[in-house]
Amino acid sequence: MLQFQCDYNEGAHPKVMQRLMGTNMEQTVGYGEDHYCESARRHIQEACGNPNLQVHFLVGGTQTNTTVIAHLLRPHQGVIAAESGHISVHETGAIEHTGHKVLALPAHEGKITAEQVGTLVLEHRADSSFEHTVQPGMVYISFPTEFGTLYSKAELEALHDVCLKYELPLFIDGARLGYGLSSPACDVTLSDIAHLADVFYIGGTKVGALFGEAVVSKSPALMRDFRYSIKQHGGMLAKGRLLGLQFETLFTDNLYFEISHHAVSEALRIKKALQDLGVPFLMESHTNQQFPILPNEIVSRLSKDFLFTPWQRIDETHTAIRICTSWGTTTDNVNLLIDALRKELI
Amino acid sequence: MLQFQCDYNEGAHPKVMQRLMGTNMEQTVGYGEDHYCESARRHIQEACGNPNLQVHFLVGGTQTNTTVIAHLLRPHQGVIAAESGHISVHETGAIEHTGHKVLALPAHEGKITAEQVGTLVLEHRADSSFEHTVQPGMVYISFPTEFGTLYSKAELEALHDVCLKYELPLFIDGARLGYGLSSPACDVTLSDIAHLADVFYIGGTKVGALFGEAVVSKSPALMRDFRYSIKQHGGMLAKGRLLGLQFETLFTDNLYFEISHHAVSEALRIKKALQDLGVPFLMESHTNQQFPILPNEIVSRLSKDFLFTPWQRIDETHTAIRICTSWGTTTDNVNLLIDALRKELI
Amino acid sequence: MLQFQCDYNEGAHPKVMQRLMGTNMEQTVGYGEDHYCESARRHIQEACGNPNLQVHFLVGGTQTNTTVIAHLLRPHQGVIAAESGHISVHETGAIEHTGHKVLALPAHEGKITAEQVGTLVLEHRADSSFEHTVQPGMVYISFPTEFGTLYSKAELEALHDVCLKYELPLFIDGARLGYGLSSPACDVTLSDIAHLADVFYIGGTKVGALFGEAVVSKSPALMRDFRYSIKQHGGMLAKGRLLGLQFETLFTDNLYFEISHHAVSEALRIKKALQDLGVPFLMESHTNQQFPILPNEIVSRLSKDFLFTPWQRIDETHTAIRICTSWGTTTDNVNLLIDALRKELI
Amino acid sequence: MLQFQCDYNEGAHPKVMQRLMGTNMEQTVGYGEDHYCESARRHIQEACGNPNLQVHFLVGGTQTNTTVIAHLLRPHQGVIAAESGHISVHETGAIEHTGHKVLALPAHEGKITAEQVGTLVLEHRADSSFEHTVQPGMVYISFPTEFGTLYSKAELEALHDVCLKYELPLFIDGARLGYGLSSPACDVTLSDIAHLADVFYIGGTKVGALFGEAVVSKSPALMRDFRYSIKQHGGMLAKGRLLGLQFETLFTDNLYFEISHHAVSEALRIKKALQDLGVPFLMESHTNQQFPILPNEIVSRLSKDFLFTPWQRIDETHTAIRICTSWGTTTDNVNLLIDALRKELI
Repeated sequence: MLQFQCDYNEGAHPKVMQRLMGTNMEQTVGYGEDHYCESARRHIQEACGNPNLQVHFLVGGTQTNTTVIAHLLRPHQGVIAAESGHISVHETGAIEHTGHKVLALPAHEGKITAEQVGTLVLEHRADSSFEHTVQPGMVYISFPTEFGTLYSKAELEALHDVCLKYELPLFIDGARLGYGLSSPACDVTLSDIAHLADVFYIGGTKVGALFGEAVVSKSPALMRDFRYSIKQHGGMLAKGRLLGLQFETLFTDNLYFEISHHAVSEALRIKKALQDLGVPFLMESHTNQQFPILPNEIVSRLSKDFLFTPWQRIDETHTAIRICTSWGTTTDNVNLLIDALRKELI
Repeated sequence: MLQFQCDYNEGAHPKVMQRLMGTNMEQTVGYGEDHYCESARRHIQEACGNPNLQVHFLVGGTQTNTTVIAHLLRPHQGVIAAESGHISVHETGAIEHTGHKVLALPAHEGKITAEQVGTLVLEHRADSSFEHTVQPGMVYISFPTEFGTLYSKAELEALHDVCLKYELPLFIDGARLGYGLSSPACDVTLSDIAHLADVFYIGGTKVGALFGEAVVSKSPALMRDFRYSIKQHGGMLAKGRLLGLQFETLFTDNLYFEISHHAVSEALRIKKALQDLGVPFLMESHTNQQFPILPNEIVSRLSKDFLFTPWQRIDETHTAIRICTSWGTTTDNVNLLIDALRKELI
Repeated sequence: MLQFQCDYNEGAHPKVMQRLMGTNMEQTVGYGEDHYCESARRHIQEACGNPNLQVHFLVGGTQTNTTVIAHLLRPHQGVIAAESGHISVHETGAIEHTGHKVLALPAHEGKITAEQVGTLVLEHRADSSFEHTVQPGMVYISFPTEFGTLYSKAELEALHDVCLKYELPLFIDGARLGYGLSSPACDVTLSDIAHLADVFYIGGTKVGALFGEAVVSKSPALMRDFRYSIKQHGGMLAKGRLLGLQFETLFTDNLYFEISHHAVSEALRIKKALQDLGVPFLMESHTNQQFPILPNEIVSRLSKDFLFTPWQRIDETHTAIRICTSWGTTTDNVNLLIDALRKELI
Repeated sequence: MLQFQCDYNEGAHPKVMQRLMGTNMEQTVGYGEDHYCESARRHIQEACGNPNLQVHFLVGGTQTNTTVIAHLLRPHQGVIAAESGHISVHETGAIEHTGHKVLALPAHEGKITAEQVGTLVLEHRADSSFEHTVQPGMVYISFPTEFGTLYSKAELEALHDVCLKYELPLFIDGARLGYGLSSPACDVTLSDIAHLADVFYIGGTKVGALFGEAVVSKSPALMRDFRYSIKQHGGMLAKGRLLGLQFETLFTDNLYFEISHHAVSEALRIKKALQDLGVPFLMESHTNQQFPILPNEIVSRLSKDFLFTPWQRIDETHTAIRICTSWGTTTDNVNLLIDALRKELI
């Protein structure tokens, strides 16, 4: 069974594994205060073009979102997010569990706009019973989104500006950041992200690491005492160096972007093949996730050899599926998938 | 300025005040364990037709909703509610503050249906990543709703049945319960409510008391240790007898329903007058809240002498306003309002 | 049965009741934004000698403590308190329920010292794994304490100074503030409290009101958005004017202090009588709570006619009991108690 | 610098690393539902002698404690623990952050007794204002404790019995479980633990794994919906197989106990050498942590070549230090430490 159902099917990039093996019996202090974490921080600061950025390492995505959001908000505040955002729908209410409402906005292809944010804030302020409603306290977006779509630089700048205007920190969930930045359709750089977001994270779990997310922020004020929050939320890995070693490796010789580029290229090969076969898509994605709409019987037959995610029922006879590639997806497997699709669809 | 903007403009019904005055210097034990609370419990059990009901007294509505919901849910569960429900929009995220997501359903005239509840539960269970989403744990509805509308007995029975089927406690917010039960359009009795809801509350704040809500439940299992929760949520009034005295008075000689009936009658007089004048309504309400749609200039002129709530912009030139009556609304004031409306609209 | 078991046995001071009766059918806006609340705020500002103080009204003590503490702390912070403090032991974990640890210090007669606070902060900072422990975020004390004891002005100043030094807001629980300030042993004024505390509250429930606590703060920064927190914690009374009316009355013509003085005088009469009879005390209290140590058989006989609280077992044959007076305690009842004590003890 | 300051200085046991390497590019489903996790569950069930045990894998210790405790308690309940317990002092208030008080009991050498638990429960129930205090809801102990000490089988049985009597789940924190069970002073087996605890966890992070803790429970009722809680608390590792692979390896051919035995033997060699030199100990530990009391100047000189943890100031001239061994501690390093100690102390 060839797996295209998500981007965390395999272990870690071989270079990451080699690094972990090569250092395995070394002794270091714990909790992210070792020299490997220190080195990884410098590598990431350099990649972002800003030596003053704060960098913290956590284990997983839900944990990272929860820790950052709970750290930034005051008790009566909520986080603005797309109604399709990961924190809105796929984290078992972890944000609410820390006491905060997700102020969900209708999203177009997984994205929200600066205008929506501004309107929400103004409506809140104009409400005569505003103190009876949750105060918007920050903005959360995913880059790329849960549908593989991308914010343009102009869209991000507009979000940045509206956030600045209304004093809302802007937090970018970069669980798949590499796959976004490596897309040919992307006009944003890592430096742009580091400049426009108050806090963001660079996803490792889905992009070459065994696990791990690097939280990055330009704002020491917002991040004050953040290590307490990491510990409180169970995200302070005892053997913190494992995170440092992985991110140091991924940010050496451009590895993070190289392997991201591979995943996106393979996804776009699948997309092109499907387009050539006249298959419609649920959404126009330029990253590692593709959402073709296929006849149910084809979906059914394909699923004997390939694992993918049934995403959305379109009508009686059609379903949109999600096909995911990753740094670990092989060209051979993609060829087999394309062959199988062609066989079915021609 | 005559006030029709809410149903808590005045103090308490004169009989309630007399009772508080008459007992003022008596000494009783605190925290709701005095004989007045005991007596009030019996009066409420009798009015509900069930001597085995548990009855607890709390101070206010948001506090009551939060305490009940936090008491009933497990940490990974959320409460199903109308997106227009009070807990969804008007309690500063109090439910989320206790760790739980409000699972908001689209509402029609403030109401949700048994079918919607069933569909939500089945979709949750069918979701391949169900453990990544919030588990529906109970259902919250308001009777009457925030728009003054009413569930029919058949609708409540259907909700009861779907809740029973999926093991979801049904909680009814009765902040304005009297105004619902006293409506000529209502086919439900207090006994029905006590039978169909696992937990509900009888609103005092808006119906004749200075403050106070009586939580009623047929289920000792659900209410186990509820007094701990009342205390933890700051709802255990030191001088608990104040709540007992008020509810005892309200549930003596049918006072609660008599004064509710008055409020509804006055509201329906206003409604009739407006209908006769050809004024359209945002919603068909048969209780103490009415939502007529008026030209903006009339709204503006009326607001010099009358206080009401601008509710919703309809178009460039029209606004829906909320007019509220209560147990304390005088017939004279209603006549003055009707006269003023007639003067404007004829 | 004559009741001395607590200071909330009766309703409210007759002047308070008259005021509520006299205004009962007036119409006002809700949620503490009416002119009675406004007037009460001015009266309190005046009594505190500072027209710039923020004043908010809440319903009860646990609610007030929880709302203030949750509002002031960041998520990784805890509140320093005496291990015998009300928030440590008698609020069903309400503080923990909002996510914060109570950092309990050993107390002497219910009091903690500036030195203890300083030591705790310095130890926290010196701890090599400080981020793995709760950060001290504020200080909570009760004035008078739960044992009726008083901080001297010098002790309060020392606490103020250490709090200032380490940037910890100082919060004073004044549930019985009147009984403290009216004690002959007290060298502190209301103005001193308002100057030394960052936030404090003036207890109404136990001092002449039906219910209600007035939160006072000299710091707009700390209190920013506090009304959201009041609402979120269920403390925003719909008919907020009830709080305004009560505090306006209590702070007119010195009523609050006059009735407090009465309660303390009566308590000290009981104390003197017991001392004259050679009865030892658990603690030297100069306020409305007294803790005499009596032989068990006397405790048992007294409890047929008088209600008081068994406080602490001293040895096989003796028990400390709590005798409480209040604004509502009559001189006659105190005389009856003293007579009964004399009869038993002579 | 040779490190003895904790038991997570190194990576993972070489067999664990080989297993991760050997399976690295295999594709599996995520979130702990893969066949490696399934296999690891069976290995653990077998080692515990009970095929019906539930087994879940989480990433770290604080996360595991928080997730289990928040899952088991109702909102008004607290967890009984030693005042020196990890959850009491070293998890940044993570338990309180989920809303629950830690009911800390005075501990002797890190241990609490069945008698203490029984007394606490009875005192709570006998308290006339019991609903104003936190209800004891479960018991937490560490095996071995944070001081390396062990509960005897009789002590554990007594705790089990008192927990059963008062319906309190017993939860055992086994962060160092291997080091406890492998001690020559231990009269408890893994099967005993699995039988006596309602829930416990087998620590991987400190015993041979890169990271990971295996939660084990005999009670399906207590663990109902536990995977929701894992996800909500950020503990559901995307590449869950990493946990399965590690625990499968550790529980193959007795590896977990073999490497634990090594760590304890080396610790006891150090202990024996120090005892022979007449050095006193803070506490009698039979596991991998030792707490000798040394003159300050020797501590100071040793710390040039060895890393250990200054634990407690004994007097002006002496300090207790913690020396930790682990599965990764080499015999050579222990020899060097013993030589250095001898050189200093003879």
